[in-house]
Amino acid sequence: MATGVEASRLSLNTATVREQWSLAQCIDGCARHGIGGISPWRDKLQEMGATNAAKAIRDAGIGVSGLCRGGWYTEEGAITQAVIDDNRRAVDEAAEIGAACLVMVVGGLPRGSRDINHAHALVEEGLAKTLEHARTVNVPIAIEPLHPMYAGDRACVNTTGHALDMCDRLGDGIGVALDVYHIWWDPEISAQIERTGKKRLLAFHVCDWLVPTRDLLTDRGMMGDGVIDIAGLRAQVEKQGFDGYIEVEIFSQENWWKRDPDEVLATMIERGAVI
Amino acid sequence: MATGVEASRLSLNTATVREQWSLAQCIDGCARHGIGGISPWRDKLQEMGATNAAKAIRDAGIGVSGLCRGGWYTEEGAITQAVIDDNRRAVDEAAEIGAACLVMVVGGLPRGSRDINHAHALVEEGLAKTLEHARTVNVPIAIEPLHPMYAGDRACVNTTGHALDMCDRLGDGIGVALDVYHIWWDPEISAQIERTGKKRLLAFHVCDWLVPTRDLLTDRGMMGDGVIDIAGLRAQVEKQGFDGYIEVEIFSQENWWKRDPDEVLATMIERGAVI
Repeated sequence: MATGVEASRLSLNTATVREQWSLAQCIDGCARHGIGGISPWRDKLQEMGATNAAKAIRDAGIGVSGLCRGGWYTEEGAITQAVIDDNRRAVDEAAEIGAACLVMVVGGLPRGSRDINHAHALVEEGLAKTLEHARTVNVPIAIEPLHPMYAGDRACVNTTGHALDMCDRLGDGIGVALDVYHIWWDPEISAQIERTGKKRLLAFHVCDWLVPTRDLLTDRGMMGDGVIDIAGLRAQVEKQGFDGYIEVEIFSQENWWKRDPDEVLATMIERGAVI
Repeated sequence: MATGVEASRLSLNTATVREQWSLAQCIDGCARHGIGGISPWRDKLQEMGATNAAKAIRDAGIGVSGLCRGGWYTEEGAITQAVIDDNRRAVDEAAEIGAACLVMVVGGLPRGSRDINHAHALVEEGLAKTLEHARTVNVPIAIEPLHPMYAGDRACVNTTGHALDMCDRLGDGIGVALDVYHIWWDPEISAQIERTGKKRLLAFHVCDWLVPTRDLLTDRGMMGDGVIDIAGLRAQVEKQGFDGYIEVEIFSQENWWKRDPDEVLATMIERGAVI
């Protein structure tokens, strides 16, 4: 069993302190706390400018475990040029900051639709388009299977097995971002982590599932405060050879988003030692 | 494609009007509205008394699509005599009212546990015990796979495939209760409905997934108000030969539980015609 994660191996997903800090402040915070990696969201990246951000991250000596997020292929019910272009920009931003991958939240059902099979087809069509460009600039694309409670409005790819089926068909340059929050309940998860393998295991995100959970989106817990066997899942991905950052992404309207962000980072580090 | 459900083919799960009506009132309501079936929850059944309820249901000429619910095997971290006895009573109650099945909500993680594999093992052990008795009184046991968002605190069996794996091992007398709310997102659902087959398809529940969903438990929608392709799923279960009741179970704190129950039943019937 794995025995804790050093701060240098943690990555701060900027969503964890999104209500408190800009990207510049996040970079500075990571440097001060000895957190080794960062994973920006695009809104914060664009606010700072990708070129400035790339320089600041480089100067701070921090790695980039991912860029959140591309995708959202389904909303219009067709793969529009606007969606293709936006994902192309996301790939270029990921390349500019040297992100280990571009994380994809693929989109839920098209507006007004009840046809989830059509949504799946749109996602695969969109990913194929994005991949064409991503391969040319060597940005790995990571499908993030989201928890099934987001199938309607955020992502209709909800299991690791389903994401890997798509990867199998799409070929090189695409894999998965596994977030314990989304996958912990899956009775097939051990087999699917094995199936993923090192090459397709592009990111590993942690937080915790609180009991009770009071909101579908913004009531995620700090590692250790919930019921997920995070250490067990980490051991499984590391058995496949995963040696990337352990990225902390916590959406928490009523708790962590209201705290002093230095306290949030200190707690991340403290809890990292026991997962 | 199926073309709507007559009132006589609908069943009222008492949870749909649980804040407004007793079981006696539900039975009377079904009779007045021409709703053909009922599925009581045990609290309401015990309040009325199973013998009285059985007589009232019989006198009203109504069928019983299920009894909700047995299970809850995991909480103590071991299969206690109290849990075995309670499930035995549930089986006897189901027999007394002539329920088509006893619906099982199997339980989430044991208190303080993060070991979902252990929870799975407890569930299977508990179901095996309950089955021994259920077979002697011919009450079919129906595992209800719940949506993965309930894995922590309600049921750690969250896919139809996982439930059927258990059924395969447990043998005769056990099948599944499929509720569109819990299964609609599953990319394997079509294959798993085929795998279920008529004999193991013991109940079919409907409501709808609202976008947005404001509460994990009590924000379910009336059929037609959400994004589930209910007609498509119904066509698939009927293709397997399912000819039981279409049971309406809606947990809705802020909407349907606050309305006049006669309006709720009238709306059920109206919407039944378009699913």
